[in-house]
Amino acid sequence: MLKTKILLVGYGNVGRGVIKSIANNPDMELVGILSRSPERVKKEFNAVPVRAMTEAEAFISEIRPDVAILCGGSKDDLPKQGPVFAKLVNTVDSFDNHSRIPEYFKSVNDAALAAGHVSVISTGWDPGLFSLQRVLAGAFIPGARAYGFYGLGEKGGLSMGHSDALRTIPGVADARQFTHAVPEAIETIRRGENPVFQPGDMHTRECFVVLKPGADREKIVETIRSMPGYFAPYKTTINFVSQEELDSKYKGFPHDGLVIAAGSTGNGNQAQVEFRCIWGSNPEATGNVLVAHARAAVRLAAEGRKGAMTILDIPPSYFTQLDRDELLKHWM
Amino acid sequence: MLKTKILLVGYGNVGRGVIKSIANNPDMELVGILSRSPERVKKEFNAVPVRAMTEAEAFISEIRPDVAILCGGSKDDLPKQGPVFAKLVNTVDSFDNHSRIPEYFKSVNDAALAAGHVSVISTGWDPGLFSLQRVLAGAFIPGARAYGFYGLGEKGGLSMGHSDALRTIPGVADARQFTHAVPEAIETIRRGENPVFQPGDMHTRECFVVLKPGADREKIVETIRSMPGYFAPYKTTINFVSQEELDSKYKGFPHDGLVIAAGSTGNGNQAQVEFRCIWGSNPEATGNVLVAHARAAVRLAAEGRKGAMTILDIPPSYFTQLDRDELLKHWM
Repeated sequence: MLKTKILLVGYGNVGRGVIKSIANNPDMELVGILSRSPERVKKEFNAVPVRAMTEAEAFISEIRPDVAILCGGSKDDLPKQGPVFAKLVNTVDSFDNHSRIPEYFKSVNDAALAAGHVSVISTGWDPGLFSLQRVLAGAFIPGARAYGFYGLGEKGGLSMGHSDALRTIPGVADARQFTHAVPEAIETIRRGENPVFQPGDMHTRECFVVLKPGADREKIVETIRSMPGYFAPYKTTINFVSQEELDSKYKGFPHDGLVIAAGSTGNGNQAQVEFRCIWGSNPEATGNVLVAHARAAVRLAAEGRKGAMTILDIPPSYFTQLDRDELLKHWM
Repeated sequence: MLKTKILLVGYGNVGRGVIKSIANNPDMELVGILSRSPERVKKEFNAVPVRAMTEAEAFISEIRPDVAILCGGSKDDLPKQGPVFAKLVNTVDSFDNHSRIPEYFKSVNDAALAAGHVSVISTGWDPGLFSLQRVLAGAFIPGARAYGFYGLGEKGGLSMGHSDALRTIPGVADARQFTHAVPEAIETIRRGENPVFQPGDMHTRECFVVLKPGADREKIVETIRSMPGYFAPYKTTINFVSQEELDSKYKGFPHDGLVIAAGSTGNGNQAQVEFRCIWGSNPEATGNVLVAHARAAVRLAAEGRKGAMTILDIPPSYFTQLDRDELLKHWM
């Protein structure tokens, strides 16, 4: 089997998830890692060459990956890395700042079109699977709104994007953010009321923050509560904890969610769809989705396609290793 | 707005569902109906020209539809009509005899390729939405099996395909078939056991049959129980009822279902997805899905694509009226 050669850009939680996913996909092969701290990465993982981010262009010329999976953060890393790497190679990323997706799409699309590469942006769990389910629900139940909920379980779901955002605040040593769905909001939708929600009606946010010595606690609270997009629109609870408490009580990366849409067909017959997912490890789940999109990106590039695209632009059969005969025979 | 012109082929329950769906999709326009019994149809619906099936070619030349939605039965109608219409116009159908999809795909594909048309086959609820969810689950959770269940509610779900199959049996005046999920089977999957099921482990089938005068009851029972694909693999209950009882107690077309897949990521972290849908009217839901696929078929044909395809071959954005800017801004 001719394997798809993957370059990993950024070795954090999602990057580790991607490596585990590649091991479960026999048509995929990790061929190299780019990191801001290559020496740190080599201590943990040295099965493939690891180089500094500054050597990207030379490294790509050397190892010739089919596709790069970009695992940097959405707040500071991807807005710069996305367009840079789209010039060098086909890319897949999980840019997850919803309100900035249009401008991110444009900057990556310009770079990918100019270079003749395929760049799949903003995929993973949400945006990604949930975007797809929202659009399908809206297309197949005309007039139904599609809603996304997160953290339906008792402990809520750990949001990596929001945890990363907390950690960028000066004075924060470490932090984790758990998202909680508002159950009453889900019931309103199931009753077919198609409510108009503000983000804060659907979720609350619970932060566990470890301070650096001498940090300005009040200023940090104010910074969190006023962070646009991430926290400003939500009822946000901020708890200051020790590193030990964070590591023992709030460990792991569990997450879960629900896309739900309810409307009607014909003369008022009920029409309702729900997509539920439960992940023991959010970054490993995201890694799986990114790897399946890497498979699709390489196929699309082989067909001569170029430019930025999202999960909405990709035929679902491109995500799987199964061929058409197998899909027709056993999966339809 | 330049509307997509739809020819409806076959005016049964699904055909009526398609007409109701077109009314809810402002970019779609019904331009004609072909029926085996045009005079019967005209009595019920005369907003557009209605012609006999035998006049198909002349009618299509006259009204020049962008796409035909084929609403005949999968057992006897579509195997003949699918390839015939694929030669004349772009088509969409809901052929739902899973085990015969590969051969049906081939016969429609040959015709569509030769004529330069797009023919989307086997779409609706299942095959269709469920096929898509199965493939996505398998692609995004490597190693997880995806399972489909139907009729999770107390009354079960009315299967149109199986009801149609019952009605083709000599001596049967009318019939309805309700499918029931086996709850224990669903729980096994939620526990992550990835069981190997035979079809009969997952569902039971409950038939309500009205006999014609003088019909051979024992022979009908034997015919039902031995019908390959439809009933032979299942625990099947057969109840003989009067037409009045059928019409009052077992009316309507409710159905519901669940696609579920459970596996793991990395070193054993839970990964589970579930797609649940509930339809007050199964044929209206199928009509909605067919109309969204008609939109996609016309777009694909405009791009020069040709041949048979399934929901797995179509980028999800093609199903919606929303443009890329709107999708990036509000739906990702």
